[in-house]
Amino acid sequence: MIVLGANQYGKAEVRVVRVNRPDGGPHTLRDLSVSVALSGALEATHLTGDNAAVLTTDAQKNTVFAFAAEHGVGEIEDFGILLARHFVSSQAAISVARIRIEEYAWEPIAGTGHSFARSGGEVRTAAVTVDGTRTWVVSGLRDLVVLNSAGSEFWGFARDRYTTLTETTDRILATAVDARWRHSELMEWAAAYRAAREALLAAFGQTHSYSLQQTLFAMGKRVLEELPTVAEIRLSLPNKHHFEVDMSSFGVESEGTVFYAADRPYGLIEGSVLRDDAPPAPSDVAW
Amino acid sequence: MIVLGANQYGKAEVRVVRVNRPDGGPHTLRDLSVSVALSGALEATHLTGDNAAVLTTDAQKNTVFAFAAEHGVGEIEDFGILLARHFVSSQAAISVARIRIEEYAWEPIAGTGHSFARSGGEVRTAAVTVDGTRTWVVSGLRDLVVLNSAGSEFWGFARDRYTTLTETTDRILATAVDARWRHSELMEWAAAYRAAREALLAAFGQTHSYSLQQTLFAMGKRVLEELPTVAEIRLSLPNKHHFEVDMSSFGVESEGTVFYAADRPYGLIEGSVLRDDAPPAPSDVAW
Amino acid sequence: MIVLGANQYGKAEVRVVRVNRPDGGPHTLRDLSVSVALSGALEATHLTGDNAAVLTTDAQKNTVFAFAAEHGVGEIEDFGILLARHFVSSQAAISVARIRIEEYAWEPIAGTGHSFARSGGEVRTAAVTVDGTRTWVVSGLRDLVVLNSAGSEFWGFARDRYTTLTETTDRILATAVDARWRHSELMEWAAAYRAAREALLAAFGQTHSYSLQQTLFAMGKRVLEELPTVAEIRLSLPNKHHFEVDMSSFGVESEGTVFYAADRPYGLIEGSVLRDDAPPAPSDVAW
Amino acid sequence: MIVLGANQYGKAEVRVVRVNRPDGGPHTLRDLSVSVALSGALEATHLTGDNAAVLTTDAQKNTVFAFAAEHGVGEIEDFGILLARHFVSSQAAISVARIRIEEYAWEPIAGTGHSFARSGGEVRTAAVTVDGTRTWVVSGLRDLVVLNSAGSEFWGFARDRYTTLTETTDRILATAVDARWRHSELMEWAAAYRAAREALLAAFGQTHSYSLQQTLFAMGKRVLEELPTVAEIRLSLPNKHHFEVDMSSFGVESEGTVFYAADRPYGLIEGSVLRDDAPPAPSDVAW
Repeated sequence: MIVLGANQYGKAEVRVVRVNRPDGGPHTLRDLSVSVALSGALEATHLTGDNAAVLTTDAQKNTVFAFAAEHGVGEIEDFGILLARHFVSSQAAISVARIRIEEYAWEPIAGTGHSFARSGGEVRTAAVTVDGTRTWVVSGLRDLVVLNSAGSEFWGFARDRYTTLTETTDRILATAVDARWRHSELMEWAAAYRAAREALLAAFGQTHSYSLQQTLFAMGKRVLEELPTVAEIRLSLPNKHHFEVDMSSFGVESEGTVFYAADRPYGLIEGSVLRDDAPPAPSDVAW
Repeated sequence: MIVLGANQYGKAEVRVVRVNRPDGGPHTLRDLSVSVALSGALEATHLTGDNAAVLTTDAQKNTVFAFAAEHGVGEIEDFGILLARHFVSSQAAISVARIRIEEYAWEPIAGTGHSFARSGGEVRTAAVTVDGTRTWVVSGLRDLVVLNSAGSEFWGFARDRYTTLTETTDRILATAVDARWRHSELMEWAAAYRAAREALLAAFGQTHSYSLQQTLFAMGKRVLEELPTVAEIRLSLPNKHHFEVDMSSFGVESEGTVFYAADRPYGLIEGSVLRDDAPPAPSDVAW
Repeated sequence: MIVLGANQYGKAEVRVVRVNRPDGGPHTLRDLSVSVALSGALEATHLTGDNAAVLTTDAQKNTVFAFAAEHGVGEIEDFGILLARHFVSSQAAISVARIRIEEYAWEPIAGTGHSFARSGGEVRTAAVTVDGTRTWVVSGLRDLVVLNSAGSEFWGFARDRYTTLTETTDRILATAVDARWRHSELMEWAAAYRAAREALLAAFGQTHSYSLQQTLFAMGKRVLEELPTVAEIRLSLPNKHHFEVDMSSFGVESEGTVFYAADRPYGLIEGSVLRDDAPPAPSDVAW
Repeated sequence: MIVLGANQYGKAEVRVVRVNRPDGGPHTLRDLSVSVALSGALEATHLTGDNAAVLTTDAQKNTVFAFAAEHGVGEIEDFGILLARHFVSSQAAISVARIRIEEYAWEPIAGTGHSFARSGGEVRTAAVTVDGTRTWVVSGLRDLVVLNSAGSEFWGFARDRYTTLTETTDRILATAVDARWRHSELMEWAAAYRAAREALLAAFGQTHSYSLQQTLFAMGKRVLEELPTVAEIRLSLPNKHHFEVDMSSFGVESEGTVFYAADRPYGLIEGSVLRDDAPPAPSDVAW
């Protein structure tokens, strides 16, 4: 028999900007993209088009705006928890809510108290899953682009018929960090985010690297060392190849100074680093 | 203790074009983006930077090109199986290979036998997982953009404080279909792809829709009905909202003819349709 | 003294879908992105913030929707002329209106009369300029991706110290056509578009090419030959390099069959083809 | 007769990273995308496919890499001048060279002397035109995203049948600055860039705005005031609409704190600010 399997629905990419305008003081703002995904007793709408259990995605969008007004937007993890618990507790049919939030950073332009410029390339992320009784929080970032111009080697690798790569003891290592770390308990999110970001940057810079895999593990390990309540971190690191340009045919020497930044193809290194005694999370928790 | 968890690595987005130039006959071509991901006994490179078990991603790229030359590129599922089995069988350290392929369609320009124009917006996909003894094949497509200008209603939905959406018995329903179907056995891929694509289009058009969820289930069910050896299909359908423009304030009537195509936010409906007697696949099979 | 120079303003990328629902007959639809840019006596808003002459971009958007309802959307050139003339004739301060329209193609899905799938990759374009008494119309297309797998050579080029490219009498030639042609009189736009598109494809395929420049000129010339009332055509042709893969180091021969489709850098060939007796257009006409 | 009109060709988007590795000191790097466009006596390749006058775009790419190695990459304006003059002076057929460069910013990660993170969202640009005897330099930036959460009004605008916008004395004003300024003489580019960027930010923040046009003029004027040798500046400012969310239907008040960041359509304000006594530049100078 043909049956309905796992499913979820919701409003994606609600772009909300929350401005705080304290009397007399400088303004602050939070700039988010919020995505809601709800699961539960939703067979009817799939099988017959009976929508009695369907909270409209339009209402979900309105809820995001309303909560931003009434509760403010603090740390995105807290805002995600607030939203996820609301949907699960207020909708009988909904048993699991997954909220994903991206935050775009702004910094004040000196002088006015109400002028801002978008800062940084990276995006801060949160993914919250609430199933009624339990809450899982995954914090993260993406598009943190980093490069080491020394301290990276790659040699001693396996060889087959198709292996032509030259071994090197001095290459550029560059990547766009996508990292997500799962917390085993609720905490002070802003401080944790700063600490994790710093740990990622420090481990990337300080690891003398023999492979991007080694750098990945070092970065993940450092975050877990710095943040005792993080259970697991997942990293996805594209190897943004910078090939040294061979100019010998026209008599020019690069001497390790001129590189071509390639687009595709690229290596893609993905891995998880975790505590062996950390309580596992269900496989359908949002990351 | 901090340990390494699940991990994989490989070359992503190898853009290969294979031209067939038969004597005297018209040329044909296949245009692919191939991504390789390998898993196995890769602790050493992560923990110590010892790369003895690491087949370079550069060699993986070379293999894609070499196999395209030596074996040709037939259906992408077959090409994926060929590559996946090669990596698992030839590399002692590699226990699982996952190959993802996207194919871009071209059609001949009349007249020359060697001129082509890119056709269609959608992309055909395949994801192959080989673990040494077993092979899983998932076929699919993405970016098949479809629209119904009649036959879609949405009413009778749940209501909470934040529900303001008006019920409608006549709306535009549009989506960009992302569909992936898992085969329970190897088969004639090209015919299966055509049949699945047709089933998706037919079910989308012919379903009088009370919700996009209902349309999703109908589309998935139709594919399973048409293809008895498909075990499961997963669909991700963004609701590409087309809002009828309210022009009453300046005295113009739309009468169901003028719509604003919105970008964000959008509803996102995701679901799986499967046979209840189908053998399940491991959770780490590539989709 | 510091003064205001050339300026224009307007609403960009109004996404409007116009559905025609004839009684009993199959539906049809037009899917557009309309951008309005107005120029004129607009010093005040720039210098003092006095907006008395500023028709809001919101009203411009409303006008696009209203005209789509009241006049329908026929060919995009006609719709552009209608809009441009409206703004110039109804707003005393506005002396020049430039309307740019992109059209996305759909084709019916067989069976229902109200189901459609997005077709083709290319986008049809129009740019209309009206200055009160005169009207210029530029038709065009972009993202028409084409490839010749034979009939392309490149040799006999200039050589300097940095020239290392190998001469070839057999290469793949591929590009994404961006073409814009200026009409010297109003005409039947749909037929003209089909004729121009066919001429571009035919000339691309049929020209035995010694350089992409030669192909560009042949494509432009063909359009002018087929359409006697086109005064000038401008083409921008990125050379989408397909490099034959050298696999000799691992003992595989490509023999002209395996190519790597590169992203960046790319050659970019731009040129205009015109009638030497065509009346020139002002330099600020929209293309 | 059908003839060849204006034309140019070259290699676009050469992605070059130049690393400086001083003995014992910290590394520095410049990360560029360089596009070359050459014009001149190029009729033959267009009309007959005779390529004797065509310096290959591949050689142009090699030149970019070679010059980065031999001369280093200083300020992008200087690097552009060096390249443009080289092509015009060394190739008899080439009479005009246009070089466009984008620069992506990086900042050091503390600790290692060889680790960097991409910084900022904006891109610095230069466009250099050399015609043999004369040199024009246009500096600029794009994607500098800024927002004022106070100090912006919009009222007193023209009204027609389609005008429904509500007047406001308090709105969010946000844009992504694209600015290009033409120098009337060569100068110290790095300092000029910093001064122009600061002037743009200061004028954006400090202008109490009654229209984005007014802000545009103020920004351009400020740059010209701060940089006496800038002849003209051109600004393109998309109005990144932030609409206050009306939540009255579910009893929530935004009170100027909750905004929806819209994607499309958007207002687009474009204008030039110049000195009335500045020597004009030819219309085909690169911007």
